[in-house]
Amino acid sequence: MKTSSPAQQTRVNGARLWQSLMDLARIGATPKGGVCRLALTALDGEGRDLFVRWAREAGCSVRVDAIGNIFARRAGRDDRLPPVMTGSHIDTQPTGGKFDGNYGVLAGLEVVRSLNDAGIETEAPIEVAVWTNEEGSRFVPVMMGSGVFAGAFTLEHALAQRDAAGTSVAEALDAIGYAGTAAPTPAVGAYFEAHIEQGPVLEAHGCVIGVVQGALGQRWYDVTVQGMEAHAGPTPMELRRDALLAASALVEEVNRIALAHAPHARGTVGVLEVFPSSRNVIPGSVRMTVDLRAADDAVLLQMDAALRAACERIGTTRRTPMAVEPVVYFPPQPFAPELVEGVRADAAALGYSAMDVVSGAGHDAVYLARLAPTAMVFVPCADGISHNEIEDAEPEHLEAGCNVLLHAMLRSAGVAA
Amino acid sequence: MKTSSPAQQTRVNGARLWQSLMDLARIGATPKGGVCRLALTALDGEGRDLFVRWAREAGCSVRVDAIGNIFARRAGRDDRLPPVMTGSHIDTQPTGGKFDGNYGVLAGLEVVRSLNDAGIETEAPIEVAVWTNEEGSRFVPVMMGSGVFAGAFTLEHALAQRDAAGTSVAEALDAIGYAGTAAPTPAVGAYFEAHIEQGPVLEAHGCVIGVVQGALGQRWYDVTVQGMEAHAGPTPMELRRDALLAASALVEEVNRIALAHAPHARGTVGVLEVFPSSRNVIPGSVRMTVDLRAADDAVLLQMDAALRAACERIGTTRRTPMAVEPVVYFPPQPFAPELVEGVRADAAALGYSAMDVVSGAGHDAVYLARLAPTAMVFVPCADGISHNEIEDAEPEHLEAGCNVLLHAMLRSAGVAA
Repeated sequence: MKTSSPAQQTRVNGARLWQSLMDLARIGATPKGGVCRLALTALDGEGRDLFVRWAREAGCSVRVDAIGNIFARRAGRDDRLPPVMTGSHIDTQPTGGKFDGNYGVLAGLEVVRSLNDAGIETEAPIEVAVWTNEEGSRFVPVMMGSGVFAGAFTLEHALAQRDAAGTSVAEALDAIGYAGTAAPTPAVGAYFEAHIEQGPVLEAHGCVIGVVQGALGQRWYDVTVQGMEAHAGPTPMELRRDALLAASALVEEVNRIALAHAPHARGTVGVLEVFPSSRNVIPGSVRMTVDLRAADDAVLLQMDAALRAACERIGTTRRTPMAVEPVVYFPPQPFAPELVEGVRADAAALGYSAMDVVSGAGHDAVYLARLAPTAMVFVPCADGISHNEIEDAEPEHLEAGCNVLLHAMLRSAGVAA
Repeated sequence: MKTSSPAQQTRVNGARLWQSLMDLARIGATPKGGVCRLALTALDGEGRDLFVRWAREAGCSVRVDAIGNIFARRAGRDDRLPPVMTGSHIDTQPTGGKFDGNYGVLAGLEVVRSLNDAGIETEAPIEVAVWTNEEGSRFVPVMMGSGVFAGAFTLEHALAQRDAAGTSVAEALDAIGYAGTAAPTPAVGAYFEAHIEQGPVLEAHGCVIGVVQGALGQRWYDVTVQGMEAHAGPTPMELRRDALLAASALVEEVNRIALAHAPHARGTVGVLEVFPSSRNVIPGSVRMTVDLRAADDAVLLQMDAALRAACERIGTTRRTPMAVEPVVYFPPQPFAPELVEGVRADAAALGYSAMDVVSGAGHDAVYLARLAPTAMVFVPCADGISHNEIEDAEPEHLEAGCNVLLHAMLRSAGVAA
């Protein structure tokens, strides 16, 4: 940084950030080094209590809303300004890791602690949010807390959802003491979220900071392929209607559709079930899923059309009719250009290698972007692995991402004179 | 037929054959019109008792060997000659039909009855065999009775096999009274077996008689594909190691390998299991089966080499190593050319449309061919469907096949002057 104001010289405390991550990871720790802390369980309650204690120790006021979202607030000089918010989630997958979500929350806390250490007052208030049930492992829908906050679905709908044991979200919130009463936040000035990448791109390019342009749109489908079950021995090749052979052609076609819209498009068949699934019986039917993603809605629609055309063509050619049923649609969510540009500039000023990336997965930031200018900061995770107990990240990468978050938030919140 | 001896003028009684098929099908009849009569169950015992009664009523002597094979013998003029044998099995799949196996047994009985009606004495004796446990649904290995008879495996091995409930073959034979004591048959003069095709070729060609050249050889494999499980969203296409994408390429390659050796080669992937099988997770591994068949052993070896080369090539290209493990090998079994030629000549003389076919599936005849000159006669089944309760066949086709069987057996057994 050319000029050297006290604010510009401020850096986060990477060791403190790492220690907080490790301390939080003890709650629900698994023998393999991961974390199992499902949303709104007693362990989630313990994790929340620890965050709230830390936030209060850092001078924040804490409020909880009706879906259990926690907001730790550091007052601004003009406390009536809309808060500059950051956050993520601390619930995990059943075999989750220490960093997914937790990093975004504790990076926010570290920003507050560092501002305290440096004695910096911001113009606008700063808030660190812990969003309820991002993972969706125990209750659906996923990104529940941020979804209610952004009006993607109603509070009543979310509270009524039940887990496999029949417990409702409302009951689970009550049980851990996080059925809050805070009034809805009237406005958010800007939202930032730091997160491990959960993919291999940064590592493959040797970059420390991912400047996230936005989140991919998603279209999910169920496809069924109807062939004709028959004996593998007596049925000549030319008389077959092999459902798996047709499904295999579609798997390759889904791959081609995504490659045709490189670099950001994705096409995945994650589930493929064969019936009757006997070694010497030609498959009579196949049930499979298709997951298409793209950064641009027009591209996603082109991919949708290409998928349907491929199903029609393969089904006709191989005499194996294919039925395509849409399951889910998430529109692409571009982030705010001015905030994204700020993240890029801060990374450069801090001397970190950086590259533009997209978020292929959903995050709370995707809902927040419907309410407020939003940006995300990615840091690498080892081998791109996430949602896994072996999820790992380098302390210096986590520190770097937190420094970028600090300066991006200062840019939006302003430093009091 | 040019000359018109009484023997040459003899025809079977199609209505009686059909009635016997329907009577036997009542034992273990299912609501959907099929038959469930698993090997060596009480129902199998009832079916055997009915056959034995019919055979004795037709003047046959009956003996049972130690693996429960039943032999109904009609004496020849020179009873020391090796018998000309026919037969099949009356055990069924759990959701089997009325014709698979049963037709071959009752066509043999109808040959005996028709010879009686016509007052024809053969030079060599004629025997109708009911082979134990051809289907292998309750006890493995399949084709158990004919396998022991042909020395493919030992009597002791077969008797020791147990079903899912822990009952041994020896115990099950005792329980239904078919643990016999007949000495092994010293020699078989010739063996014939009539069977529904269990495939669609005759129907597709509008032919009534299939002149079976032999049985395809079979090589079965387990293939495992090792990729890298990852999130479908954050992982760009070019960094993926998608086990299902690689497996799909192999499915198509197995199809190409079989098509390259048309018309008799077969290649089938019947089982394909994806792990972890989640809609938004790139498959990390796949377990699949491959079933290759060919009429010629050299061709089967070429197909084996092509499969291994494809696994190597796809595994390297897609960075998804593939492991190929052989599971089963049955050599191709050509039938006796002089008997096959006789079947073809008899079909022509009787005025039936006929074509050369191969048996893609295993039959008791495949083991008998190791002991004696052997041939098979196929008749169409509706839509090529078998091992299914809706298995069906036309009475006139069954009669035609039985007439061909009669004359082929007379050709081998000789008519006493």
